Amino acid sequence: MSTTTITTNADQESVTAPLLSAHRSIPNSTSQVAIVGSNVCPIESLDYEIFENELFKQDWRGRGKAQIFQYICTKWLLCFLIGLIVSLIGFCNNLAVENIAGMKFVVTSNMMLERRFGMAFLVFGASNFVLTLFASIITAFIAPAAAGSGIPEVKAYLNGVDAPGIFSFRTLVVKIIGSISAVSSSLLVGKAGPMVHTGACVASLLGQAAGIAAAFRAPVGGVLFALEEMASWWRSALLWRAFFTTAIVAIVLRAFIDLCLSGKCGLFGTGGLIMFDVYSANISYHLDDVPPVLALGVIGGILGSIYNFLLEKVLRVYNLINEKGIVYKILLACSISIFTSCLLFGLPWIASCRACPADASEACPTIGRSGNYKKFQCLPGYYNDLASLIFNTNDDAIRNLFSKDTDSEFQHSSVLIFFITCFFLSILSYGVVAPAGLFVPVIVTGASYGRLVGMLVGSHSNLNHGLYAVLGAASLLGGSMRMTVSLCVIILELTNNLLLLPLIMLVLLVSKTVADAFNGNIYDLIMKAKGFPYLEAHAEPYMRQLTVGDVVTGPLQLFHGIEKVGNIVHVLRTTKHNGFPVIDEPPLSESPVLFGIILRAHLITLLKKKPFFIPAPDRTGMDSLKQFSAVDFAKRGSGNGDKIEDIALTEEEMDMFIDLHPFTNASPYTVVETMSLAKALILFREVGLRHLLVIPKISSVKISCGGYIDKARFHARTYIKFAPFAGKEQVEKIKISISAYG
Amino acid sequence: MSTTTITTNADQESVTAPLLSAHRSIPNSTSQVAIVGSNVCPIESLDYEIFENELFKQDWRGRGKAQIFQYICTKWLLCFLIGLIVSLIGFCNNLAVENIAGMKFVVTSNMMLERRFGMAFLVFGASNFVLTLFASIITAFIAPAAAGSGIPEVKAYLNGVDAPGIFSFRTLVVKIIGSISAVSSSLLVGKAGPMVHTGACVASLLGQAAGIAAAFRAPVGGVLFALEEMASWWRSALLWRAFFTTAIVAIVLRAFIDLCLSGKCGLFGTGGLIMFDVYSANISYHLDDVPPVLALGVIGGILGSIYNFLLEKVLRVYNLINEKGIVYKILLACSISIFTSCLLFGLPWIASCRACPADASEACPTIGRSGNYKKFQCLPGYYNDLASLIFNTNDDAIRNLFSKDTDSEFQHSSVLIFFITCFFLSILSYGVVAPAGLFVPVIVTGASYGRLVGMLVGSHSNLNHGLYAVLGAASLLGGSMRMTVSLCVIILELTNNLLLLPLIMLVLLVSKTVADAFNGNIYDLIMKAKGFPYLEAHAEPYMRQLTVGDVVTGPLQLFHGIEKVGNIVHVLRTTKHNGFPVIDEPPLSESPVLFGIILRAHLITLLKKKPFFIPAPDRTGMDSLKQFSAVDFAKRGSGNGDKIEDIALTEEEMDMFIDLHPFTNASPYTVVETMSLAKALILFREVGLRHLLVIPKISSVKISCGGYIDKARFHARTYIKFAPFAGKEQVEKIKISISAYG
Repeated sequence: MSTTTITTNADQESVTAPLLSAHRSIPNSTSQVAIVGSNVCPIESLDYEIFENELFKQDWRGRGKAQIFQYICTKWLLCFLIGLIVSLIGFCNNLAVENIAGMKFVVTSNMMLERRFGMAFLVFGASNFVLTLFASIITAFIAPAAAGSGIPEVKAYLNGVDAPGIFSFRTLVVKIIGSISAVSSSLLVGKAGPMVHTGACVASLLGQAAGIAAAFRAPVGGVLFALEEMASWWRSALLWRAFFTTAIVAIVLRAFIDLCLSGKCGLFGTGGLIMFDVYSANISYHLDDVPPVLALGVIGGILGSIYNFLLEKVLRVYNLINEKGIVYKILLACSISIFTSCLLFGLPWIASCRACPADASEACPTIGRSGNYKKFQCLPGYYNDLASLIFNTNDDAIRNLFSKDTDSEFQHSSVLIFFITCFFLSILSYGVVAPAGLFVPVIVTGASYGRLVGMLVGSHSNLNHGLYAVLGAASLLGGSMRMTVSLCVIILELTNNLLLLPLIMLVLLVSKTVADAFNGNIYDLIMKAKGFPYLEAHAEPYMRQLTVGDVVTGPLQLFHGIEKVGNIVHVLRTTKHNGFPVIDEPPLSESPVLFGIILRAHLITLLKKKPFFIPAPDRTGMDSLKQFSAVDFAKRGSGNGDKIEDIALTEEEMDMFIDLHPFTNASPYTVVETMSLAKALILFREVGLRHLLVIPKISSVKISCGGYIDKARFHARTYIKFAPFAGKEQVEKIKISISAYG
Repeated sequence: MSTTTITTNADQESVTAPLLSAHRSIPNSTSQVAIVGSNVCPIESLDYEIFENELFKQDWRGRGKAQIFQYICTKWLLCFLIGLIVSLIGFCNNLAVENIAGMKFVVTSNMMLERRFGMAFLVFGASNFVLTLFASIITAFIAPAAAGSGIPEVKAYLNGVDAPGIFSFRTLVVKIIGSISAVSSSLLVGKAGPMVHTGACVASLLGQAAGIAAAFRAPVGGVLFALEEMASWWRSALLWRAFFTTAIVAIVLRAFIDLCLSGKCGLFGTGGLIMFDVYSANISYHLDDVPPVLALGVIGGILGSIYNFLLEKVLRVYNLINEKGIVYKILLACSISIFTSCLLFGLPWIASCRACPADASEACPTIGRSGNYKKFQCLPGYYNDLASLIFNTNDDAIRNLFSKDTDSEFQHSSVLIFFITCFFLSILSYGVVAPAGLFVPVIVTGASYGRLVGMLVGSHSNLNHGLYAVLGAASLLGGSMRMTVSLCVIILELTNNLLLLPLIMLVLLVSKTVADAFNGNIYDLIMKAKGFPYLEAHAEPYMRQLTVGDVVTGPLQLFHGIEKVGNIVHVLRTTKHNGFPVIDEPPLSESPVLFGIILRAHLITLLKKKPFFIPAPDRTGMDSLKQFSAVDFAKRGSGNGDKIEDIALTEEEMDMFIDLHPFTNASPYTVVETMSLAKALILFREVGLRHLLVIPKISSVKISCGGYIDKARFHARTYIKFAPFAGKEQVEKIKISISAYG
């Protein structure tokens, strides 16, 4: 059988998921595709379509009430476990960071107190360096998929794009440990994104909501974040289950915090469930506060879009460096660490020492890790306001920026320097080979920007500078992440200040609108830079001008209901499609008829079990059904499926036949070839499809001129030729028809 | 033409939307169907499918960038206006209620002070009676659709069920005025539901979110409420626009409240944006508080399901009374009003007067409308705790129940009496012919239940009684409304107590789970009682056993591409379908082929403009396209479409022909007849369909054996015969095929 051995080796190199192949022809994205695409697993793990074949029907009929009950219980138990595990991880994560980073600042501050500045810098820089090195080494060598935020990967996964190894156990472990050391190393990176990824690792579909709940102690916001930002396809049952999971997280976290209040957690803060409490009983603001807040929103939107723009550019440069090898990756991370240490230690020297206020509510100056008035290099009775922000953990810096009754604490120059530092440092830090979130960096940058605006507005406003910092954080989040309801609730849950809600809504509204005029949201940009073919929910205008017939994948690969094994193996080896139409032709049926669609994964399972036969009147293919149970075809975890190359078949087996009927989805979604691409896109997204069969308009013309449309088609703009005026032929046809009719 | 005049009069009586007809055969719901179904407008206003015909394509091509920009601007301007108008209405609503009800209580209390108890009761009872009478008269005579909450109607509308007149201007006016007088009349009815309906009236698709924001000052909760409870079909663009609208509401309301703080709003409270502020900086609760809270959740869930059960039964009884005529409707409302007045005025006499506490933070006893310590009949220095709850507006009662530092204010017996009164009174009050919400009654009942539990737990708990009341309200809301995330945020926004969040989540979780074991959520029960065929999102198990072929509507009504006018008129008059397949048969095409689907509304538009012709070689139907623009076929507002009975045609016109091709949706959604009903349901719900064409598996067999499936089919259980084991014939067929193949 010469056909079955064609160019297997050459193929192996170019095996990419079909949805990625389309991207190859788009200029500038080839290198990114190569990173992801070269070993993307061709198994589809997110096919939401109910796959109705004989096996499925038998399985469903065979299920008793007890089994269904057991199934439901298992699902809820799983949700409970996810919540429990994620909250445990989240708690340990916070505990570790607070203790490691806290210890570092305590030791350094004590040296500063003894005025051994050189030694202090050495300890500070060295510990940062070691921590970064450790994070980057484990990420680069053990689990490269653990680098970065993880939110774009999770979002793409929920859209059906399965990057290699993003949910493996290795990734989980590296993500947790790497995130702890990267955040502790004073790199300006966040912990929320990695926590979301961790949650998603723990439960590849539901965990994402649990992640943000644990990272930020914002349970309802977490559910909404999952809903608004992540899910391509959402069901109300999922909302209810996500709520359950986050409720578990909230309750367990609350219990742990209770435990810590009794002082058993070392340097872990004594803060409650609210991370940055800015509650004040009577915030009064009036119409004259609206103009500065509006301005803050507009500038925040512009800053947000610049942030996104720069981050994407830096990521592209980093990608070029990272591609050169693991050593370059680690070198890049280390140099960013050294640069950060120098900045954090060096910049506070610029600021002049200020005398402690007489009526300060806190100790001044403070020595150690937190507190509003850091001593740094100053003499007793004086404090360094820039050090209070910059020589601190991010959480404490945010707390200082959000604090009320501290309007005279900071100098204009200090806040400005801090803002500029954060803005650029967070952009430079994100792309290094270590787990790194974006939420905290954006909040800290936005808070300093907001505080600066508050200081400039000064006494013209009824709002204190801390509240301006909250609004600034909201505006930069809105300008960068572009979410609305979930950000609103997250900010609410973080700051516990409900009276501010109308202003927060206003700021989010303005900043998102302004930023949307320039570019897309940050996760989408990162996804694009990574080459993930994310399918947007809305149709582009050009899609209205095209019909699905214009973009069907060709040449179409068909199988017959009773197919030769050799043909199947050949087609699987030479194409990258994940689904194949199955047709019955005469003499099996009166005329060619589309029987259904069969998946690559199912074909491979069939080839492994070998229910082959040589056609004979006394032998039918239906026996093969008995060899299988639904479990054989159950959806595998990401990347666990077999590959066609792993299956060895003899020459005799290649010549045998296989009956595909019982394993074929006999009721696939189909559309006529004249449907506009825009309309097909809606069907695709709303029902959560991976394949869509396109059938010809004239039903009596033989079926093989029908086509097959897959996800990549919506992306493959370069493949698309603009259709001629579609009405013309129809006019002709109808004209002829009418004359004939007449 | 005898065929065109068949039984038009008989038909007119039974013209129901096709989706309602299926319900007729379900026992016990006939009477409800008759109420709604008898004059349901056959125009479909919620067909989310993109209707791709020639006209649509021309229209889209013709649109310039300026027009698209204008379109987008108009949409946003509309959202802005909706937000503005709804917040204005909401503010006026609150203002009017507070002033009318407040005035009533002030006058009555002053009479009580002079110990003229009989006179006080007379004034109280008479004013309540007059207000109820007014509300019921305007509702019964002017706009019967304004009765009740309106939320089930809006929910059903968004699902595609168009009850008559629910969004008319008359309904809007009656809803606003009726709600004000009903709430002021001390009937135990809420204002949130009517406000949601008002918002939906103002903008029939988007306004619902604005409604709850204005009623409760819970903007984010409002968006989520719309998302979780109402929308059958949701797009992210809608979320963003709903957020925009609610933000406008929040900001405008905030400005009005600002205005009122300076004392220009009469008796309107001086409260801020938070309605029931229960903030306390340090709530500490520990593991030993969890068991009583769990118990509260479980019992709350049971109470909620009993509440739903009783409410539905009472509604059915009321429907029987209301059907007898308008006089009976008004009599019912008036007797409930008298009963309520007697209870509210009579019950406080049972409670013993208690001495004012020496360290009370408020004036004690209070005379007038609000305050925790009502004097009622007591002597100076004493207060009546039951009167503080019962002889008060609902908002003030909730405030009293939620208040902290008042643990010793109420007696067990008083709270118990209040709870029982609220529980039954709210059930009895809902069904009267006046605008009436359910949110506030459920909150007040739940709060009294929670407070009672708090008092029983007593000193064993770290939580004060006010917080127990909040949790009790949450549990009854969870047990009755069955929402999760949106209720959570609404409670958060109402009470401003974020630290309680884990407990609220726990309570909602438990109460919803418990209540779900017994019956459905309250809005679904009301919808069912009203006979609305709401299409659930999840598939019932029996749907997996059926194929769409088993449930297609028959006999199928087809049109040809070139159809005789008389035939169209006949079919439109004799059927109730809203969509008709259009086929081309030889000699127009090689073989019978499905061209598309055409809507009833579009056919009526065609018949009105009369683009008829007599077939001739030099005359084609395509000219008719020029007579129309897309505006002619634009979606009408609810109930504004023409009816087939209104169109007069001559005998000559009846004999002419019409070319349906340019007006036919040439790319309808189709499924094969072997698809399971469950799978088709998902397509139906996710894409937001009204019609779905079912095509036969064997494509070469003539198309007319294809079917048509509409929404009602998913409901028509009584029509459905369970299919025989579907695999059997297939086995036979394949056996034969294989032998033939061999």
